[in-house]
Amino acid sequence: MVDNSPKNERNSMPYALEQLDTPFVAVDVDIVEDNLRRMQQQAEAAGLKLRPHTKTHKQPGLAQRQVELGAHGITVAKLDEAEVMLKAGLTDILIAYPLVGRAKAHRLALLMTRGLEPTISLDSLEALKTVALAGQLAGRSVNVLAEVDTGFHRCGLNGSALVELALTIHGTPGVRFGGLMSFAGHISGHRDVDRITRLIDEEDGMMHDLVRQITAHHVPVDDVSVGGTILSHHLQRLRTATEVRPGIYIFNDMGIVTAHAATIDQCAARVWATIVSQPEAHRLVLDSGSKMLSTDGPIDGCYGHIVEHPDWRIVRLSEEHAVVELPPNAAPAAIGSLVSIIPNHICTVMNLQNTVTAVRQGSVVASWPIMARGGTQ
Amino acid sequence: MVDNSPKNERNSMPYALEQLDTPFVAVDVDIVEDNLRRMQQQAEAAGLKLRPHTKTHKQPGLAQRQVELGAHGITVAKLDEAEVMLKAGLTDILIAYPLVGRAKAHRLALLMTRGLEPTISLDSLEALKTVALAGQLAGRSVNVLAEVDTGFHRCGLNGSALVELALTIHGTPGVRFGGLMSFAGHISGHRDVDRITRLIDEEDGMMHDLVRQITAHHVPVDDVSVGGTILSHHLQRLRTATEVRPGIYIFNDMGIVTAHAATIDQCAARVWATIVSQPEAHRLVLDSGSKMLSTDGPIDGCYGHIVEHPDWRIVRLSEEHAVVELPPNAAPAAIGSLVSIIPNHICTVMNLQNTVTAVRQGSVVASWPIMARGGTQ
Repeated sequence: MVDNSPKNERNSMPYALEQLDTPFVAVDVDIVEDNLRRMQQQAEAAGLKLRPHTKTHKQPGLAQRQVELGAHGITVAKLDEAEVMLKAGLTDILIAYPLVGRAKAHRLALLMTRGLEPTISLDSLEALKTVALAGQLAGRSVNVLAEVDTGFHRCGLNGSALVELALTIHGTPGVRFGGLMSFAGHISGHRDVDRITRLIDEEDGMMHDLVRQITAHHVPVDDVSVGGTILSHHLQRLRTATEVRPGIYIFNDMGIVTAHAATIDQCAARVWATIVSQPEAHRLVLDSGSKMLSTDGPIDGCYGHIVEHPDWRIVRLSEEHAVVELPPNAAPAAIGSLVSIIPNHICTVMNLQNTVTAVRQGSVVASWPIMARGGTQ
Repeated sequence: MVDNSPKNERNSMPYALEQLDTPFVAVDVDIVEDNLRRMQQQAEAAGLKLRPHTKTHKQPGLAQRQVELGAHGITVAKLDEAEVMLKAGLTDILIAYPLVGRAKAHRLALLMTRGLEPTISLDSLEALKTVALAGQLAGRSVNVLAEVDTGFHRCGLNGSALVELALTIHGTPGVRFGGLMSFAGHISGHRDVDRITRLIDEEDGMMHDLVRQITAHHVPVDDVSVGGTILSHHLQRLRTATEVRPGIYIFNDMGIVTAHAATIDQCAARVWATIVSQPEAHRLVLDSGSKMLSTDGPIDGCYGHIVEHPDWRIVRLSEEHAVVELPPNAAPAAIGSLVSIIPNHICTVMNLQNTVTAVRQGSVVASWPIMARGGTQ
């Protein structure tokens, strides 16, 4: 069972969610546990290693639970996150981010001397030099994945440039060529499942071709790591991947629901907010602004989904205000009453919190600190 | 001079900004000091009290400097912020937010017993009840401003509903009617100064009419408090206000520059980032994503202004990546080199940081903790 609580923060007397001051994030621990188990089972059924991206929750206790349930290591974006996870005893960490420069090399080397067994993805010679320097400083080689751009057009190479990078990594002392990594961020934002699965198949085909081209040079490609919760809803389609790195699946959010990769009931994290003003019959204000919800999205013009009132629309955020439009036939709202919001993008919401409230069946069971919050370096 | 450093964090040996790991926020202390002094002088020249909104910086040391320079108290949005500021000895605090519910009443009362001298703005009977309860619990009356909607359509009333609210506040035991408050957020986003000043004049006219209507009931209106850095660039136009509450002016940002209320040189806070990838000649990636810059904006399709390369465009943010488009004729970029970014909206950027780096003439002088970061309750 999920237990992410510092021992001294457990409550002996559970109390109702509605007694808490607002706004706050509540995480339903039973839904989290279900989400973790379901994805683990799906990965195993598809013969894939699961390496969850922990940037979503930034909590070592939840990462430990993911590993307990069968995850093959974890993923982070930044060294700050790796440091927090390593302190909690997690050593097998993919840093899915190009590390560049001496400061990063020295930090990575230091973490390796403390027990980190890193894999690093990269797409340039400068990042390769950085990682090789870290390996040299730490006295052992670093596992490196070549990052593939499969259509998101952020980082990554493709075609002959990618093959050349892979061969260069393979020939570089102090590093070990471990395979390929991609993140198909371009499948986010689509609602049409046929479109989504077509993009997934395209990525799979690209990875298949690249593996063929690289192995033709007698360079083995041990791992092909692909990312994302939406993609991970379609694991049975993957022919080439060996590993998947979903992050959001632990909580889910409206971005995932919109892509038909989770249901509202599978969303484990909600922002609870109070109606603090209703200047007009069809406009009210919640006390959860962009400093709670972030301005990510909007989805269908809304900055989150109000569970109790699906027809209310969060149309505008200030830092501490959410402006909500009510439909013409809406029942009167009560200033002072609470609503709960499923965010558009839970990763940025978690990063805004100092702590989140763990609940079970509507009762508060713990306060969880977001240990790697603000860890952007 | 601005000095916001915990005593044990001062550096005896200043070192160059470029030696720091990225991404980070650097604040130029000389520009901050200039910004604070200039606004203070402008407010005094216009015969207005300055009550800076500290949600922008969330740092008690900077709030203390604002008061040292002549500010008549400070503004916060949330009780969390008031608590942090009160601990640092700041007692005259406008909480420019409708407090609703027993939890808020009890918290406000507790802060009052610790020395808080609060003013609260509100727009409903529910919030009035909350504040009156706090006053009753604390054993003294609370100063209350009626919030006016002057066109932003967030919180606030206008016309006869506002006058009625003012009279009700005046007649409520445990509170004192202190006057009117507005925030003309609808002047943000405009570039045309004539349009901006017309909206400011309209607000001023509304406030003038409301004061006339309320005083006709023999109810004095001591204060008329108006908000915002853009408005505060035009203080000489205000006939009715007694107090202004700019927040962003301490740092400025691209939202303020776009409204011609500050220059690039008056922007005191920048996000420093490293070029970590350049997959194509005209696309590169910085290590400052939405967890550093927030997704506020975009302004002209960009998520911040790159000082060293004004023609580079930050067109897309992931959590830890900024995707930059280079113009067709751009000189080659060097992976590993640094750039500095003026954010679109500095308030949300500050709230994302654990600490910011204070610099003077390019040398690091201190690390400042963002004490009220994440304080949304």
